[in-house]
Amino acid sequence: MSAAASAPATIANLGPGFDIAGMAIEGYRDLVEISLRDDDVVEVQVEGREADRVDDTPRGNSAAVAASHVLRRAGVRKGFNLKLVKNVPVGVGLGSSGASSAAGAYAANLLIGRRLGMRELVLCAAEGERAACGSPHLDNVAPSLYGGFTIILDIEGPEILHVKPMPGFEVIVATPHVSLPKNKTEYARSLLPREVPMETLVRQQASVARLIASILKGDLEQFGKAVSMDHVVEPARAGMIPGFREVKKRALENGALGLSISGAGPSIFAITRPQDAEKVAKAIKEAFEEKGVKTSITRTTPSTTGARPEPTNP
Amino acid sequence: MSAAASAPATIANLGPGFDIAGMAIEGYRDLVEISLRDDDVVEVQVEGREADRVDDTPRGNSAAVAASHVLRRAGVRKGFNLKLVKNVPVGVGLGSSGASSAAGAYAANLLIGRRLGMRELVLCAAEGERAACGSPHLDNVAPSLYGGFTIILDIEGPEILHVKPMPGFEVIVATPHVSLPKNKTEYARSLLPREVPMETLVRQQASVARLIASILKGDLEQFGKAVSMDHVVEPARAGMIPGFREVKKRALENGALGLSISGAGPSIFAITRPQDAEKVAKAIKEAFEEKGVKTSITRTTPSTTGARPEPTNP
Repeated sequence: MSAAASAPATIANLGPGFDIAGMAIEGYRDLVEISLRDDDVVEVQVEGREADRVDDTPRGNSAAVAASHVLRRAGVRKGFNLKLVKNVPVGVGLGSSGASSAAGAYAANLLIGRRLGMRELVLCAAEGERAACGSPHLDNVAPSLYGGFTIILDIEGPEILHVKPMPGFEVIVATPHVSLPKNKTEYARSLLPREVPMETLVRQQASVARLIASILKGDLEQFGKAVSMDHVVEPARAGMIPGFREVKKRALENGALGLSISGAGPSIFAITRPQDAEKVAKAIKEAFEEKGVKTSITRTTPSTTGARPEPTNP
Repeated sequence: MSAAASAPATIANLGPGFDIAGMAIEGYRDLVEISLRDDDVVEVQVEGREADRVDDTPRGNSAAVAASHVLRRAGVRKGFNLKLVKNVPVGVGLGSSGASSAAGAYAANLLIGRRLGMRELVLCAAEGERAACGSPHLDNVAPSLYGGFTIILDIEGPEILHVKPMPGFEVIVATPHVSLPKNKTEYARSLLPREVPMETLVRQQASVARLIASILKGDLEQFGKAVSMDHVVEPARAGMIPGFREVKKRALENGALGLSISGAGPSIFAITRPQDAEKVAKAIKEAFEEKGVKTSITRTTPSTTGARPEPTNP
């Protein structure tokens, strides 16, 4: 017997929501198929366009680690065969390991008759993140599991608020072709200040308030504005993306409602109304090109569906 | 011709909402009556139970300063007679100068036929706060003008979100009789850290998210929890209130949904369901008394009405 599930790419660190707010997006899904074995061996096989770029060992593969944790938590002491179809681009700030972890945890839970609840799946998927990034951050696995927006109300908890996105917007993801240190997430964290001045904390609290209020009220304009008003992380990391400030300025001038860095970068994302999307995408591409930076642009939408069952190959 | 208005006491720094979130409460209102003069003289008269404790000069009285700014902004170049009936307790963290400022600004605006909008009144009232405290903070004047909850979305703006409180809770205000330095607000600010570690910022962001989400969703239990989860200001200021940690513990054990410091203290406030209010009030009083601290306790409710017109004395 086998089970399969997929989970979407995500944008974490949504503007001022560093480590707490994320959004699932359409366009890329990691797929995991899993079946139990009679022995205690774990076999991992990775396919898909990004297959070469991920660890395929039982202890290093995010999907396998997340699946192991699900089975252990449910008291199932067996090995398994796991196939990961790796579609989410790796290392560009779109929650690649989070999507694998979410798909792995979700598929394993399907296999055992959904014995775990969503909150437990978040914890298991976070262990997949730990295998990939060194720490069990929730900000990608949560939206990848739930879909839509997720807001983490307690870092230790986890306690997660799940909100359906407001209608009427597109997300433009631009990935500049820049070379970054190998452990990019760690590098991006090293750019952050260790301490933040009290006045900045207050301004950031106001931005977080705007972000959460906009999401709960479904106020698209306020949401875009909030995304653009990160006073802590974006200023610290802007330097890793050549031309970031100019790109942001040009996108906003051309109708973007908001723009910030996706996850640990180097991808950036813009929030736009559908009618402005083409113009905004063009402005971003041109602004990067003027700085001599090649860029891949993807026009997409928020994903209301997080991890979900998929048909298994017979 | 004269006009009169009143404005309520407020609780600012609502848990993790330092400088951004406040709540109006019932029980105390400052009242301002104002009439224009033909010359450019400003005369201030202060009455009421707290009259001895406030500045009654035209440039030092919060209500008069706020009223002056309203008239100036509306282009009215005349002096005025202003009578302030000072009821909100002074210097205990219940937004006393904010209430005077709000009542002064509102009354002056009534006098000139409501020429200014609420946002302008907030700015004028903030100038009244500046006269009293040295800086134009909005976190008391905003709830005192609007009533209910106010959330400041932009410190510089100001941009204010006004939300009606969820039903079904009482507020217990306890004012310990402690002697604090004369410029108490400045002293309370001096206790704050200049910088906050990044990990604390993230935890605080999660608490702010919980606070805003609870207020917008009308989720009373989450609101109480959020109020109790300030990781920055409350820990820094707890020492100015003898026995604070024990008082908080005992209040929560006895049914309080949340507790924190009101404004710059030394008052504290607890959120409770009405059926638990008596028990919580008793627990707070006893815990303070065991530390040898006398305490005044007030049971009240949120005020949905902010500044409002009042009848003038003929």
